[in-house]
Amino acid sequence: MFTIEPVGYVSNDRKTIRDDNWGNVISEIIISPKISEKSLIGINEFSHLEVIFYFHLADPSKINISSSHPRENPDLPEIGIFAQRKKARPNLLGSSIVKLISAKKNIIKVSGLDAVDGTPVIDIKPVMIEFLPDEKIIQPGWCAEIMKDYWKKI
Amino acid sequence: MFTIEPVGYVSNDRKTIRDDNWGNVISEIIISPKISEKSLIGINEFSHLEVIFYFHLADPSKINISSSHPRENPDLPEIGIFAQRKKARPNLLGSSIVKLISAKKNIIKVSGLDAVDGTPVIDIKPVMIEFLPDEKIIQPGWCAEIMKDYWKKI
Repeated sequence: MFTIEPVGYVSNDRKTIRDDNWGNVISEIIISPKISEKSLIGINEFSHLEVIFYFHLADPSKINISSSHPRENPDLPEIGIFAQRKKARPNLLGSSIVKLISAKKNIIKVSGLDAVDGTPVIDIKPVMIEFLPDEKIIQPGWCAEIMKDYWKKI
Repeated sequence: MFTIEPVGYVSNDRKTIRDDNWGNVISEIIISPKISEKSLIGINEFSHLEVIFYFHLADPSKINISSSHPRENPDLPEIGIFAQRKKARPNLLGSSIVKLISAKKNIIKVSGLDAVDGTPVIDIKPVMIEFLPDEKIIQPGWCAEIMKDYWKKI
């Protein structure tokens, strides 16, 4: 076991948990005053970042360590927790690739971050081409079903 | 602050920290007996997984919360810790997209996992097309320099 301390927090207008419609959410990641603003030197030369965060609103008593239906939809197959991206998972971590809009002082402005206002951020890494898959991604059909309105704009 | 507990461990033949030549390292992720084998149901339908892990061999006293030269190379520019993927970073987390070879019982066999033998794994997520960037990745020139032998086979 080891301890994690947030490096910053998400600020946006998404105040409650909601599965879909992340398409036009713009977020700011406010880096903690414990960390130097120099931690962002050179970040504007990247188009995309990977943000690792903590699902602080997920109920720890509901963490799934087995399998379940994605989105609790009984019409979808029963899927292991490590084969889906559900929030109530061991360690309650989220990870998203976001588009960097700008970084200034201790604030990083991004789009594509599917985390609600106040979410603790625990790491930020630049996306490098050499770390992305260089082969076709294969995934089961239920993914398209649960993702159909995920990035839809409201 | 919150606590993290490994969900499994990496098993491979890379016993010591080394920056390069990850190209032909095959790893097994052994899922902890505390977690049901059902956690892997359906995972074989994905081609790629995202693995979040803990840099357990990195020296916590050397964690950078500011900026430094990538690979400690003074010929490269000074870069903020959140604009590079160095191990000695706040919270000591690594995250890699790997290729799934097979999953059976509590063992996931993968390639492209740049983590040494014994590394604690703290989450595994399926890679879905809808979560990958849909625009061209832009990155500074020093990335190609540090990555040139990273995936080279030995």
